[in-house]
Amino acid sequence: MDLPKNIIALTTDFGTSDYFVGSIKGVMLGINPNAKIIDVTHDIPSHDIWSAAYILGMTYKYFPQYSIHLAVADPGVGSARRAIMAITDKQYFLAPDNGLLSFIFEDPDFSRVIHINAEHYYLPVVGSTFHARDIFAPVAGWLSKGVEPEKMGDEITDYVRFAVPKPKKEGETVLSGEVVYIDKFGNCITNLHFEDIRTMAESTGSGSYSIAFKETAVDKLSPFYASVKKGEHGIVVNGNGYLEIFVNQSDARRVLALKRGEKIRITF
Amino acid sequence: MDLPKNIIALTTDFGTSDYFVGSIKGVMLGINPNAKIIDVTHDIPSHDIWSAAYILGMTYKYFPQYSIHLAVADPGVGSARRAIMAITDKQYFLAPDNGLLSFIFEDPDFSRVIHINAEHYYLPVVGSTFHARDIFAPVAGWLSKGVEPEKMGDEITDYVRFAVPKPKKEGETVLSGEVVYIDKFGNCITNLHFEDIRTMAESTGSGSYSIAFKETAVDKLSPFYASVKKGEHGIVVNGNGYLEIFVNQSDARRVLALKRGEKIRITF
Amino acid sequence: MDLPKNIIALTTDFGTSDYFVGSIKGVMLGINPNAKIIDVTHDIPSHDIWSAAYILGMTYKYFPQYSIHLAVADPGVGSARRAIMAITDKQYFLAPDNGLLSFIFEDPDFSRVIHINAEHYYLPVVGSTFHARDIFAPVAGWLSKGVEPEKMGDEITDYVRFAVPKPKKEGETVLSGEVVYIDKFGNCITNLHFEDIRTMAESTGSGSYSIAFKETAVDKLSPFYASVKKGEHGIVVNGNGYLEIFVNQSDARRVLALKRGEKIRITF
Repeated sequence: MDLPKNIIALTTDFGTSDYFVGSIKGVMLGINPNAKIIDVTHDIPSHDIWSAAYILGMTYKYFPQYSIHLAVADPGVGSARRAIMAITDKQYFLAPDNGLLSFIFEDPDFSRVIHINAEHYYLPVVGSTFHARDIFAPVAGWLSKGVEPEKMGDEITDYVRFAVPKPKKEGETVLSGEVVYIDKFGNCITNLHFEDIRTMAESTGSGSYSIAFKETAVDKLSPFYASVKKGEHGIVVNGNGYLEIFVNQSDARRVLALKRGEKIRITF
Repeated sequence: MDLPKNIIALTTDFGTSDYFVGSIKGVMLGINPNAKIIDVTHDIPSHDIWSAAYILGMTYKYFPQYSIHLAVADPGVGSARRAIMAITDKQYFLAPDNGLLSFIFEDPDFSRVIHINAEHYYLPVVGSTFHARDIFAPVAGWLSKGVEPEKMGDEITDYVRFAVPKPKKEGETVLSGEVVYIDKFGNCITNLHFEDIRTMAESTGSGSYSIAFKETAVDKLSPFYASVKKGEHGIVVNGNGYLEIFVNQSDARRVLALKRGEKIRITF
Repeated sequence: MDLPKNIIALTTDFGTSDYFVGSIKGVMLGINPNAKIIDVTHDIPSHDIWSAAYILGMTYKYFPQYSIHLAVADPGVGSARRAIMAITDKQYFLAPDNGLLSFIFEDPDFSRVIHINAEHYYLPVVGSTFHARDIFAPVAGWLSKGVEPEKMGDEITDYVRFAVPKPKKEGETVLSGEVVYIDKFGNCITNLHFEDIRTMAESTGSGSYSIAFKETAVDKLSPFYASVKKGEHGIVVNGNGYLEIFVNQSDARRVLALKRGEKIRITF
């Protein structure tokens, strides 16, 4: 029978063309041949901690209890930055201590962070460039075999955490947010959640609103992508509940010249 | 022991850089931790139903009995287009009802199509942009756990099916086809099967023929890529039995300026 | 319980956009549904035997005993070049006989090479363009089910092997090497191992040295990437023990205009 903690999900900026991914898979399987290794993505832009945090934040909730996530975008590898493990009620998260787990820290089920300093769970020789293989992979392997997280190191509270950008109220009738992620289709995902609009609509007593970004204004949400003509733009509530600017069967980033950080404002 | 239906093979246009692939894997593992998830490809060109259909058509026969295929290129996601499951004698195919399963419908072992409308097998909340996660992934998970396909919805016969382009006879001595797919090496795969040539050779009583495309003519098949000099072109019978225009160790698409739909004619 | 040989690791130049990878996975699972298929990489540059050899060489040691590696970059597919299996004390390597396994042949635990000519372990029909699917995948499948390697064919000793470039001593005080691989971050990995420097330092009795490449000279190793400022260059000992030229949080290949084969010299 499969062990309860045998799922190890990988979210990295290693790309898929080099020896990085193969090495960490080999290390994990060497420790636990029954580990079930799942590629989430290895195509986080190089050194882009925010994108790694975002992708992890949008996927981990769908994984079953006891899943182990190994997440790496690590420009500070080899420096004094620590290797950490965050634990929620249900899952384990291994990452460098650089803010990558900031979305996890916001989870109501977030419990604690352990500094992974029990070096006997590392590979025997640890280099300065590839802690994913030398530290995170073996720790994930041992964790998947049932070693208690407490044995991996000491609890800490001074881990690095960055502020996940939140929507802001401007007066009583305006809510402003921004584009926080652009996917491979060119869809521009904002940090405005559908619940934010509903709450604002209730507090203003107004069901009608206008949504503006750059020189564009949209006065209603599209129910789905194909509800506007091919090549036309719209805003949908995406699968995670966030407003997403799209161009039907095309690339909103390119067509509308949008980028991460672009402001979006809803006026009721 | 592994369950008989635990293989779930993924063919999508989601790319590998976003949260799409991780989310659907998480959902499937949440329902069936023993699911064996296999990446066929996530690099179908965005919204390209034909390419998804082609890749699925060229791979599924190699999978074992009871494999479940989840295939998505879905420009109409969220609209009225249905979610369907095709069943052959041996395998299960989950896809949007947009023609993506057209190659499956041509399989002699193709049995029937079910409209996946039993919503209790969906995720509790279904959005309008990500049915792969909200509908197809959970249905694949339950199917892999042994839920009978009949419980997933009602049989339909009016599913969308497009015509797979077939070779055409022009008079008694000419067979014409076209380039239907170009692979990452730049090899241009046609819809002319080696059996078509054999049949035509028998009916014309002629073993000699000339193959022409654009301004190029070739008077015999190459036994393998390296049988012509590096940089020279030829035509081989590829691994699936189809004529394939290649340039040895180079890119036929670029060198010969070919594209999908390019005509190719065999004259006996 | 998992079978001891059920891990099959894939290192290929097939890309991830076509039907190649899906087909070989299907074939292996058809023979052994319990095979544990691991993607090392499918993004070896097309036909680049050296890169395939290098990536395999840098990853295989991390895999557990009895792992099976299927490695393909095969410009000569379909020609007279043979399909071979190399066996070390611990692992199995399936590849075309074109030098791809040259790093394996240098392993002290390398034992022997078998010409895979027992055709009853092939797929029933073998084409000329896709031996990974028609020969290597089924052989990997059967091997993973416990078929003895000796049954797959006859031992040979005249397999193709290329010289892995080694550092050269120039007089008593200079050691020269070259860039042998460039990773996706643009880090330029040389064939100079840290042990080479240590040995040379001992023999010269000198602990100080200068490392030069192109017009650049570096007089000490960096302990880790982030030990120099963002955008500045340095040389680290990488995770495999080799000197690696980097630019912190940027791309050394581009910034320093380096390429594979670029000379690097250490003067004591």
